[in-house]
Amino acid sequence: MNATPQWLSPAEQDAWRSFIRLHQKLTATLVRDLQANCKVSGADFEILVALTDTPDGRQRFQDLAKSIDWEQSRLSHQIARMCKRGLVAREECAEDGRGAFVVLTAAGRDTIESAAPHHVATVRRLVIDPLGPDDLATLGRISSRILTQLDNG
Amino acid sequence: MNATPQWLSPAEQDAWRSFIRLHQKLTATLVRDLQANCKVSGADFEILVALTDTPDGRQRFQDLAKSIDWEQSRLSHQIARMCKRGLVAREECAEDGRGAFVVLTAAGRDTIESAAPHHVATVRRLVIDPLGPDDLATLGRISSRILTQLDNG
Repeated sequence: MNATPQWLSPAEQDAWRSFIRLHQKLTATLVRDLQANCKVSGADFEILVALTDTPDGRQRFQDLAKSIDWEQSRLSHQIARMCKRGLVAREECAEDGRGAFVVLTAAGRDTIESAAPHHVATVRRLVIDPLGPDDLATLGRISSRILTQLDNG
Repeated sequence: MNATPQWLSPAEQDAWRSFIRLHQKLTATLVRDLQANCKVSGADFEILVALTDTPDGRQRFQDLAKSIDWEQSRLSHQIARMCKRGLVAREECAEDGRGAFVVLTAAGRDTIESAAPHHVATVRRLVIDPLGPDDLATLGRISSRILTQLDNG
């Protein structure tokens, strides 16, 4: 990092700033919407969605942390809170030494199934409909390209 | 919300999922990179950038909360921590009753100026360069369109 930094050009800066601003504002809007209308926090929702995506609603703690890119300590606290509220359960797994499973409970599944229709309608109103199919597909393609770069470091 | 939910089509779902996954992974990667290389948290960085963007490095607490879309209680705790570390200061503003200013200190400015070259190089490597100018401009345009929709509710 000793070379002169290659600062962003005005055009690069404009695009990057819009993207970051979108990021901040869309996250805040979706989280507020979930809390107000579905009584789940953004963190609850992220974990419930990740578990719902697995065939039997269960994932090893480590795999769950990796799939949503959370630090283990943060996930551990969040799972403890969700266990208390009965949304997920921990299943220890003594025999193979590869760590506990986090499992969606019936109450957790009810919660995500109740939240989903409202959340989908919000996503449609704020993102899908204003973009239209072509720009949405472009956004998906661009996102995948950056993800590939992130996976390659 | 009584109508049958209009679930996302497979194409819509693919695009939206890629975008959300990008969101999760890029945030986590940038935050880890800032912490490891620049010794600032993602929250520190977000606030320092917002203050640096104002002409004299100061913003009213309320305006700052709005500009980065944080709940006031979260911002209040974060600013208290940053005051202790000398990165920002609070300036009360008795005469007009419109609330305190948050002000970038010299140490805060040093911190952001030290972090910026590394952060820009990371953003360039992970996003700007892999996309190229056309896709980057498209990403900026799409982001602005969704932001307009968010501003209109």
